[in-house]
Amino acid sequence: MTGVIDGRLSELKIALPAPPAVAGAYVPFVIAGDLVFISGQLPLVDGVLRYPGRLGETLTTEEGAAAARLCALNLLAQLRAACDGDLDRVGGVVRLGGFVACTPEFSQQPQVLNGASELMAAVFGEAGRHARFAVGAPALPLGAAVEVEGIFRRL
Amino acid sequence: MTGVIDGRLSELKIALPAPPAVAGAYVPFVIAGDLVFISGQLPLVDGVLRYPGRLGETLTTEEGAAAARLCALNLLAQLRAACDGDLDRVGGVVRLGGFVACTPEFSQQPQVLNGASELMAAVFGEAGRHARFAVGAPALPLGAAVEVEGIFRRL
Amino acid sequence: MTGVIDGRLSELKIALPAPPAVAGAYVPFVIAGDLVFISGQLPLVDGVLRYPGRLGETLTTEEGAAAARLCALNLLAQLRAACDGDLDRVGGVVRLGGFVACTPEFSQQPQVLNGASELMAAVFGEAGRHARFAVGAPALPLGAAVEVEGIFRRL
Repeated sequence: MTGVIDGRLSELKIALPAPPAVAGAYVPFVIAGDLVFISGQLPLVDGVLRYPGRLGETLTTEEGAAAARLCALNLLAQLRAACDGDLDRVGGVVRLGGFVACTPEFSQQPQVLNGASELMAAVFGEAGRHARFAVGAPALPLGAAVEVEGIFRRL
Repeated sequence: MTGVIDGRLSELKIALPAPPAVAGAYVPFVIAGDLVFISGQLPLVDGVLRYPGRLGETLTTEEGAAAARLCALNLLAQLRAACDGDLDRVGGVVRLGGFVACTPEFSQQPQVLNGASELMAAVFGEAGRHARFAVGAPALPLGAAVEVEGIFRRL
Repeated sequence: MTGVIDGRLSELKIALPAPPAVAGAYVPFVIAGDLVFISGQLPLVDGVLRYPGRLGETLTTEEGAAAARLCALNLLAQLRAACDGDLDRVGGVVRLGGFVACTPEFSQQPQVLNGASELMAAVFGEAGRHARFAVGAPALPLGAAVEVEGIFRRL
């Protein structure tokens, strides 16, 4: 039987990637009560960094949003693992924390992070509505343009 | 009947603003169990950004603290909405996360964030005592000098 | 009677410091349900900042990792206080948030944060496995190279 969220992913023509390996001495997620804390995700596809660079310099806001969407896909891949493969057990997206590698002049961090937020809304509907912060950073791991961490609720 | 916290706000001559609109595809707050996660707030007054600029460059630490206080007022406005208008339902301030747009030489992020922290103490007393982080950022949304997100406890 | 974790600290020849004083109008930790939110910790030893500077400029990645380890020791000191002196009441490390003062070219934030993460693994074993984010910042309080905040679970 296909789950409701799996069906929505199919409609959206989204195939979730395998959850990326962590980049250090930590784990992809920790479950505490009904909250799932997921480690910061980068715009990796099959282990390769996409959209390296900085906003306001080598990347457009649209490219940044595409990078944020890849981070969100990796969050969903980790979240599926945290739910033993069943995304219907996701109670909701609680909070996304977004970091954008950028110049001191760049001010469109929210538009960049919308690439992640809009994916959550498309996949989870009402349950995808989340709190968020979006801030700049001078540099991120591997030279990534965006990093997004998240807190989710599990049923 | 006026609430205890509403009374304290009156004594402090603080009129909370209307909760600011969000800047993207997310919501101002999410309630998970007895925790309220509030999105990053900027120093907006009636939708207009106050104290744009960077610490260590165009703004003094005192101006940064004033900007952080405005962020905190907007957090309180969101928190009141999360408590259906009744701030007496606030169990406590759990954690504030503060981002300060600054030069690489600026090191007074704590003094800037005190503008937010001292407001919480003034309004909530003991229940306003919170954990915190304060860090620098090269740039923040809209060119803001400060962004503060928060986790609160609801009774 | 010596606790299990106290015994492990002895084996590791680690003497936890006294919990550092806070740098502003906040508190070192807040307990909410079974979660402990600990404020951002700096690489302070006896109140003196170690490893000031920025990664990619004045500090090597190894020095950054040593600074992150000092932040983690201070997190443990605060956590012990949050557990009334009994680290055996720690249920697990939930999430570490790491900020690395760095140049726009620096991309080894994960290796720096490993200095904190590996300490948690050494002290708590399986319970030390945590979610994490690691990002860059242009500057941190007091000119610190690293700041680490954390969420823990208390039994």
